[in-house]
Amino acid sequence: MLLEFEVATRQNCELVAVDHLLQEALRRCGLREGVLMVFSPHTTAGLTINENADPDVQHDLLASLDRQVPRDEHYRHREGNSAAHIKTALVGTSVTVPVTGARLKLGTWQSVFFAEFDGPRRRRLWIMPIFSQPHSSSDL
Amino acid sequence: MLLEFEVATRQNCELVAVDHLLQEALRRCGLREGVLMVFSPHTTAGLTINENADPDVQHDLLASLDRQVPRDEHYRHREGNSAAHIKTALVGTSVTVPVTGARLKLGTWQSVFFAEFDGPRRRRLWIMPIFSQPHSSSDL
Amino acid sequence: MLLEFEVATRQNCELVAVDHLLQEALRRCGLREGVLMVFSPHTTAGLTINENADPDVQHDLLASLDRQVPRDEHYRHREGNSAAHIKTALVGTSVTVPVTGARLKLGTWQSVFFAEFDGPRRRRLWIMPIFSQPHSSSDL
Repeated sequence: MLLEFEVATRQNCELVAVDHLLQEALRRCGLREGVLMVFSPHTTAGLTINENADPDVQHDLLASLDRQVPRDEHYRHREGNSAAHIKTALVGTSVTVPVTGARLKLGTWQSVFFAEFDGPRRRRLWIMPIFSQPHSSSDL
Repeated sequence: MLLEFEVATRQNCELVAVDHLLQEALRRCGLREGVLMVFSPHTTAGLTINENADPDVQHDLLASLDRQVPRDEHYRHREGNSAAHIKTALVGTSVTVPVTGARLKLGTWQSVFFAEFDGPRRRRLWIMPIFSQPHSSSDL
Repeated sequence: MLLEFEVATRQNCELVAVDHLLQEALRRCGLREGVLMVFSPHTTAGLTINENADPDVQHDLLASLDRQVPRDEHYRHREGNSAAHIKTALVGTSVTVPVTGARLKLGTWQSVFFAEFDGPRRRRLWIMPIFSQPHSSSDL
């Protein structure tokens, strides 16, 4: 079961918290024990887990990535968005989140963020439930 | 099944090998074929897999991250630990390790490291077994 | 079930698309719904997902990693390949790819790349199928 959601980003670079989409996926798939695998099917947008209390953390993360991977280096790729491809490789295109007792299990300060690096765009987010333990036939 | 362990870090930035905790998780959960999903529920400490033979590799990795993400940039986040948040995003908050024949399957030189970037602290580590193949009813 | 493949790299730093190996793993393991966990058992080569249409994207990614993690910094590790260890930590040693309807599910522009940072070498690639949903006994 692969659940698809849409994420509409508003900035060129932006972290969009998507915990509510993971909650919705959980409700739909009936996973009680396992993990949600969250996947970005894009090459200029990834996924990351970080603090969602102080928005300055998100600002500092995006600004640091901009310094590490400047937009105006001499890149060969003609589309002009090489920095976005590289940032996506640095944060990664998927995260895995534990689920126990049918609830998302994140640390106190953690949220899952869709990491847009070449927006604004309409993006897709794929979520797949992975069952931790096989049902026994007595569960059926 | 989500197993929780404690990792007490001793330095501000430090890589702590946690293979023995994965081994203990394996013993407790009875996983034979699948993966262990190892998760840091923190926003200033992550997980990474790298060489555990020469400790200089760990030193070089931490020093390089310090150069890429200096502590004294102009960050907005008032807590003063933005660099730790950013490094966590770069290495990631979880790793997945294969298990086969009830044994952890890592490369010859690999260890799983808890990556502390804002210590020393008492940290938590979550480990979740994921079964590769459903048991057939004949297994039950 | 852990499937092992060989990847022979030709350059010191190189991204080698391995989608065909994932396809072969899928055929062999019979996974219909779930994920393939793809793992590099090496400490100087990782895995990443990115664009496989314009080869300049791969060039720009490798060049950017070279700027972020220069080979000639003052590293302590005597083997001289610290940069390769660090780049591996940045991209990560595994990726997870959704499978649905017995087909690999990647975004339009995505490929899975074996990321060589200390080649050329003969490398190994491990692929493990993870079943998304337990078979019910009626499936058997």
